[in-house]
Amino acid sequence: MQSIRVRTARRTQMVDVTQEVQRVVTALGIKVGTCFLYVPHTTAGVLINEHADPDVASDAEGALDRLVPSAGPFRHAEGNSDSHVKTMLVGTSQFVFVEDGKLALGRWQGIFFTEFDGPRERHLYVKVLPDRV
Amino acid sequence: MQSIRVRTARRTQMVDVTQEVQRVVTALGIKVGTCFLYVPHTTAGVLINEHADPDVASDAEGALDRLVPSAGPFRHAEGNSDSHVKTMLVGTSQFVFVEDGKLALGRWQGIFFTEFDGPRERHLYVKVLPDRV
Amino acid sequence: MQSIRVRTARRTQMVDVTQEVQRVVTALGIKVGTCFLYVPHTTAGVLINEHADPDVASDAEGALDRLVPSAGPFRHAEGNSDSHVKTMLVGTSQFVFVEDGKLALGRWQGIFFTEFDGPRERHLYVKVLPDRV
Repeated sequence: MQSIRVRTARRTQMVDVTQEVQRVVTALGIKVGTCFLYVPHTTAGVLINEHADPDVASDAEGALDRLVPSAGPFRHAEGNSDSHVKTMLVGTSQFVFVEDGKLALGRWQGIFFTEFDGPRERHLYVKVLPDRV
Repeated sequence: MQSIRVRTARRTQMVDVTQEVQRVVTALGIKVGTCFLYVPHTTAGVLINEHADPDVASDAEGALDRLVPSAGPFRHAEGNSDSHVKTMLVGTSQFVFVEDGKLALGRWQGIFFTEFDGPRERHLYVKVLPDRV
Repeated sequence: MQSIRVRTARRTQMVDVTQEVQRVVTALGIKVGTCFLYVPHTTAGVLINEHADPDVASDAEGALDRLVPSAGPFRHAEGNSDSHVKTMLVGTSQFVFVEDGKLALGRWQGIFFTEFDGPRERHLYVKVLPDRV
């Protein structure tokens, strides 16, 4: 299990970490397998979506914020219940297949660390398992 | 890694692919393991839910469209930012256990390819890994 | 594959099952691997989020109910289409890494069985796979 450090800059922010994850796959030298991603936080998740046009990520940040308004009504005293709920919707884990040593992402897909209570210093766990021969 | 071709007919559509996935499991001859499903698109996902009553799928299509209105406000020029956001909520991957050569789905569960920007020709990746003996 | 029995008490309820899942990992004696969780139901899911402050779970229960109102409009005759849609949003599976025989959860993370059409008697499937040496 490896850990990638992610520094976020805004309260809600999708950070493209595709290259960092590919670097872990490459360093491990695994040619055919599955890459498992896990976020050990309760107000940040991970998702896979378009990274060609950065407008998609910024549109999604706005849409998720509108979907779960921070106003509540909420009881949790830290004032970030909306961040927890957005994390539940996006999810804290993803997997991607590995073929020929590369993440088998679709043509337009990238991996995004999704911050919902930033700015913060965060971690993304990565495990790559080779398929059995 | 296998790939199943899915042809969708509407903008938002849940397509039952349970039998196609079971066919891959059967063809591989794996008796006990895990079946991993992955969608390499950015406006389509995969989910597991009831396929006994088709009203559940049509109710869900409507509910997801109401949840993320296509009107925005959005900046992404292709006019399908809502499709990207729905994909993020549903997710682009799922797994199901395999027991006795069959997908260990619950009694009412089926696997749905979820189109959010159709009609299109799509792909669903399937990998089945046997448990270690 | 193991199965944990979960008894739920309310229509929408997040039930902390972290200890039950850890017990399965411990009983299997797997030190380094991955724990896969799967819910074989169509109106209940599983998610990972904060279990330190119980207000987070109750805030999330309210937020998810507001997000997908039970009023519809829906056609499914059982009157629980909202429960199906909430299940699709949260998801029916999760995985967590295992290190030193323990679930590698983040400091504040716990595993929640998420009931959306209770009270009911439910099941959570658990499979723990060791990493290859």
